[in-house]
Amino acid sequence: MMDRLGVIGVGLIGGSFALAQRRAGRVREIVGFDRDASVLERALSLGLIDTATSDPAGAIGSCDLVLVSAPVAQTGPILSSIAPGLSASTVLTDAGSTKQDVVGAAREALGERIGQFVPGHPLAGREQHGPAAAQADLFQQKKVVLCPLPENGAKAVQAVRSAWEAAGAAVLLLEPARHDAALAAVSHLPHLLAYALVDHVAGAVDGSEKMALAGGGFRDFTRIAASSPEMWRDIALANREPLLAELDRYVEHLGTLRTALARGDGAVLMAFFERASRERILWGTKP
Amino acid sequence: MMDRLGVIGVGLIGGSFALAQRRAGRVREIVGFDRDASVLERALSLGLIDTATSDPAGAIGSCDLVLVSAPVAQTGPILSSIAPGLSASTVLTDAGSTKQDVVGAAREALGERIGQFVPGHPLAGREQHGPAAAQADLFQQKKVVLCPLPENGAKAVQAVRSAWEAAGAAVLLLEPARHDAALAAVSHLPHLLAYALVDHVAGAVDGSEKMALAGGGFRDFTRIAASSPEMWRDIALANREPLLAELDRYVEHLGTLRTALARGDGAVLMAFFERASRERILWGTKP
Repeated sequence: MMDRLGVIGVGLIGGSFALAQRRAGRVREIVGFDRDASVLERALSLGLIDTATSDPAGAIGSCDLVLVSAPVAQTGPILSSIAPGLSASTVLTDAGSTKQDVVGAAREALGERIGQFVPGHPLAGREQHGPAAAQADLFQQKKVVLCPLPENGAKAVQAVRSAWEAAGAAVLLLEPARHDAALAAVSHLPHLLAYALVDHVAGAVDGSEKMALAGGGFRDFTRIAASSPEMWRDIALANREPLLAELDRYVEHLGTLRTALARGDGAVLMAFFERASRERILWGTKP
Repeated sequence: MMDRLGVIGVGLIGGSFALAQRRAGRVREIVGFDRDASVLERALSLGLIDTATSDPAGAIGSCDLVLVSAPVAQTGPILSSIAPGLSASTVLTDAGSTKQDVVGAAREALGERIGQFVPGHPLAGREQHGPAAAQADLFQQKKVVLCPLPENGAKAVQAVRSAWEAAGAAVLLLEPARHDAALAAVSHLPHLLAYALVDHVAGAVDGSEKMALAGGGFRDFTRIAASSPEMWRDIALANREPLLAELDRYVEHLGTLRTALARGDGAVLMAFFERASRERILWGTKP
């Protein structure tokens, strides 16, 4: 049980985290901040937070636990704004999709107090965003990656871990670089590919006719292309090197498929599709 | 109301079509054939068909309406096998995902009776396949493209159209070449990209760690990579030229995204993502 939880960025992730902590009975008061005043107001009226503040340094810096859930490029400026009023017993964490850049920005913003910041990333999301999309069970049976720093005390790591576990998530520990490489492959690259497919099809001369014939496969494949452009611009830039490496290897791999197709080599296509479909079906059976 | 419906290939599409016709009260008897005897038996025991035949020329060629729903490369051989016993009043149609190759194969198989074949393609599917996946409402509010031939009489086209409409689908008419170009973009290309992503990620040195961190975005993006490898090998080969053209243009388009990312050009990324996300959200609101 903590006394006060601070949430900076009260949209889908921050709002869902707040709801989950409240439902678990782990907090007396939730204080929220958002750069967008209308979002903050909405979060308050929806009951995601108890108190809205326009001054993160004051009201947030003395909370027991603070979650920063904002586009990753904001993490540095946000932590800098909290730092002046930061209580020594406050534990900070984040929900950013990239970790190496966030750790760098946090070191710069927090200096000697970096031990109070435990980097994290919940692997949960929906294409809807904003406070109205928040739900208490968003993290149920989802994974949360924590990337503890050498400076983190065991107590700080445990505080973040137990908050996520109370929200129903399974916590994994991973180094920031390995987190970023893995997420570039399984999340950031698919987002790039989905955005590019929609733009490619819709932007064609006969784009309207094509879009009118798109069905369920297109719908699922491109669902993530409805995600927040700002959030994904930030992620792409923050994880640029791993993402470029994945993109280049992917396009190369696609080239082997192209060669087989151009040659009319059904055996190679069949083996490729069988391998992929086996892996996908197997993955789908795992928790 | 027709007397007898023939279904060749009693899996997801053929079985669902049979269920839909029966539910609409449009048929007295449904005769099924499948190259796989166990599939045929399963369709019979599930009640998708009334009669199983091992002789398509005899039992199927005299039906009022026949749907061929099999991997597209099978269409020619199947029509050839029906041709010898084909009644002059039987209307044939198919459910293949490509149309130019199917029309070519049908002309060869049916010769002067090509007017009895009305090419079609229901834009409905699930990653599950086989008779057990069939459902009577699979085509409800889905689109079906018909590509009538100059040789088709109005009565034949109407017979196929009304069967699909009775199944709840909206029927569109389109030339085979335009159908194939559009489907290459909105269906065949995404399948290739999804198969390639799964194979790329799962085949990496650290593939297991990466797959373990894959979440909901990956799940939806790659859902279609669990589809039937044989079906998609056939489609890729049958629609090779349009698909290669789409693939090349897509990779080129992806290249502009890569250039912006390599340069760290956030404005270009943001504009690209905003355009795509707007188009995707708009498309999602259409029926």
